[in-house]
Amino acid sequence: MSHTAELIAVGTELLLGNIANTDAQMLSQGLSALGINVYYHTVVGDNPDRLRAAVELARTRADIIITTGGLGPTCDDLTKNVLAQCFGRQLVFHEPSARRIEAYFQRLHPNRPMTDNNYQQAMLPEGCTVLDNDWGTAPGVAFEADGVRVIMLPGPPRECEAMFTHRVVPYLRDLADGVIVSRTLKLFGIGESSMEAQLRERMNAMTNPTLAPYAKEGECELRITAKAADERAAHALIDPVEADLKVHFGPLVYGVDIPSLEAAVFALLKEKGFTLGTAESCTGGLVAKRMTDLAGVSSMFRGGVVSYATEVKHTVLGVDQDLLDQYGAVSEPVARAMAEGARKVLGCDLAISTTGVAGPDPDERGNPVGLVFIGLATPDGTWVRKVNLSMGRQRIRHIAASHGFDLARRYLSGLELK
Amino acid sequence: MSHTAELIAVGTELLLGNIANTDAQMLSQGLSALGINVYYHTVVGDNPDRLRAAVELARTRADIIITTGGLGPTCDDLTKNVLAQCFGRQLVFHEPSARRIEAYFQRLHPNRPMTDNNYQQAMLPEGCTVLDNDWGTAPGVAFEADGVRVIMLPGPPRECEAMFTHRVVPYLRDLADGVIVSRTLKLFGIGESSMEAQLRERMNAMTNPTLAPYAKEGECELRITAKAADERAAHALIDPVEADLKVHFGPLVYGVDIPSLEAAVFALLKEKGFTLGTAESCTGGLVAKRMTDLAGVSSMFRGGVVSYATEVKHTVLGVDQDLLDQYGAVSEPVARAMAEGARKVLGCDLAISTTGVAGPDPDERGNPVGLVFIGLATPDGTWVRKVNLSMGRQRIRHIAASHGFDLARRYLSGLELK
Repeated sequence: MSHTAELIAVGTELLLGNIANTDAQMLSQGLSALGINVYYHTVVGDNPDRLRAAVELARTRADIIITTGGLGPTCDDLTKNVLAQCFGRQLVFHEPSARRIEAYFQRLHPNRPMTDNNYQQAMLPEGCTVLDNDWGTAPGVAFEADGVRVIMLPGPPRECEAMFTHRVVPYLRDLADGVIVSRTLKLFGIGESSMEAQLRERMNAMTNPTLAPYAKEGECELRITAKAADERAAHALIDPVEADLKVHFGPLVYGVDIPSLEAAVFALLKEKGFTLGTAESCTGGLVAKRMTDLAGVSSMFRGGVVSYATEVKHTVLGVDQDLLDQYGAVSEPVARAMAEGARKVLGCDLAISTTGVAGPDPDERGNPVGLVFIGLATPDGTWVRKVNLSMGRQRIRHIAASHGFDLARRYLSGLELK
Repeated sequence: MSHTAELIAVGTELLLGNIANTDAQMLSQGLSALGINVYYHTVVGDNPDRLRAAVELARTRADIIITTGGLGPTCDDLTKNVLAQCFGRQLVFHEPSARRIEAYFQRLHPNRPMTDNNYQQAMLPEGCTVLDNDWGTAPGVAFEADGVRVIMLPGPPRECEAMFTHRVVPYLRDLADGVIVSRTLKLFGIGESSMEAQLRERMNAMTNPTLAPYAKEGECELRITAKAADERAAHALIDPVEADLKVHFGPLVYGVDIPSLEAAVFALLKEKGFTLGTAESCTGGLVAKRMTDLAGVSSMFRGGVVSYATEVKHTVLGVDQDLLDQYGAVSEPVARAMAEGARKVLGCDLAISTTGVAGPDPDERGNPVGLVFIGLATPDGTWVRKVNLSMGRQRIRHIAASHGFDLARRYLSGLELK
């Protein structure tokens, strides 16, 4: 039997445009993976009447209603009150949740007394399934009434996502009708429209699995999605398509079901027992930041130098003053010397360097915004890639950092460095 | 007379979670600035029946309906067809739009013939106001029927935003009923529930201006919003509330209408003519990255050292090996020595340091996840703040970096450093 979920986000801050409804995006992805249809998202403000109207409509066209937001003390627990009313439930005090909220609050604010409004969060619909919140104070709630499963989640995206993954997915597991399995190829170095043009005919001819292209942050993704009776059958449908795409795109594919280029580099470094360091100018610490976003990198990431001022390139990284004078900071020889300097100063096997013009203005030598040199120093020599990125400051920085990771993963995979 | 807009986004990619509905956020901000209420956002897929249902509902409760998406050839111009039908309009061929689409297409694809489905985009509701699209192919559309203004905009965020700013705002200008002006105080060092508890009575008593608290990424915001006949009158309503809140929260307020702590630090550095550098361990480059997110910082940001490996703290930052051996890398003396080392090595006036345990596991000395020491070295001495952040890895890193900026802005503002 096929199930349909409807998402209702509660929060005046959404209607004022202070934040985007990213919870709906995350939940939609997750529900789709469970094979549950989503036909509507609705956003309402902190207003009981309008929330009630949205709920009354949703229950006529969905058998799962998931709300996000409106659970905390700042909105008087609006969502819980309205949903309990709509489905004829009383709110009752839930002792274990009160204790959890207390414990969470004490851990966060050891020296601050917990205020009464925090206890309000332990008032829950009678007979509900409590979805323990290990990532914030307000517990989530689930109950079934009149053939509808009602699920209420906290609004902050971090909490909402963790609650969905660890509480809602297990709660909904029995509804899944067969399985939907996805596998995602990640590509770097090809544009979305070029990738799409190469695949268009094939995509149109496919029904199961399907193939969907996405582009984000200078990378492309190809999601292969199969529907089958069980996981094994789904994977058997996906395998040949994946193999075929890998042959077609060759070294442009940097991984499968891997979160990022830096995660690919991390895995390769561990495999080879190599250490990494960075020498960053225009990316200003972003390469190091992205690397250290990953837990467990301390074994192979030595550190980095952000040589934002030209002088620091000389004094800390040991780049020849002559090079800087002759070619300027944004140049192939300086990118090379920075990477080699970082290898020495930081004592690492590989070093990524970046130097370029992130904008908004050209540099004092007239180098255009978006010109970036990315270096990689290795025990086998140093390579420098030159790119022209016609985009805004943050994207230039992000994609320049990605090029650094791309050089490293190509070197570590024994691919051609270009 | 007060006006109410309802936003309907059309696109299966939204319901699958491939993208977030950022158009709704952008439009909500813009409509709020025009003094137009927004009570509902709805998202539907590329499905005529469900779009029709959303439109029929919206016209009963709003006098402005703005749709985004579903205008291009890939969805058979779904939105235009359904909306024209709902409001009893024929679609007619609009010659000037056809010429614009041709010209745009030729500019983008000089060597490709334009396909028929692109001409479909020039079929527009009879008697409508055409909203010329200078940022893509599909023209926008506006018409008035049965007391409702209907506005259709393309979905891609870049086009949608440009069309709203340059086409819709002028089109709606005559509706604006006075103005709504907001001002936002930014606070660091106080929790949302505590801030909210202190303000609850006052907030409940206020009607114009209103006061709304938000929390994100370890910071709090207080938005004061006033409705008045003109901007001056609105600001006059806001001024005394702002002054009052600043007295109440004192040094916890780090700025007004400022995007971030690092922007506050940047402004103060420029004002005082000071330079900044960083020495990061657990934040792994995030302090430098956040600083260099800001355009124009190269005049005052010298650079940084990411001393992720303990050895790099000694070799590059010159932290005494004895200190490292005796106290361990995560300690008050090492945070102090790192900041002071960065001041020397980078040749900067102020240096922020961080050393702590970002997790997921305690360090080898048994220091718990979330323990972070944040240092600030200055010409007047060095300060170190110790915090315990009970949260996930990324939040620990983000908030630790924020503490560094908070120390710097307190020092530069002549406030107590604690």
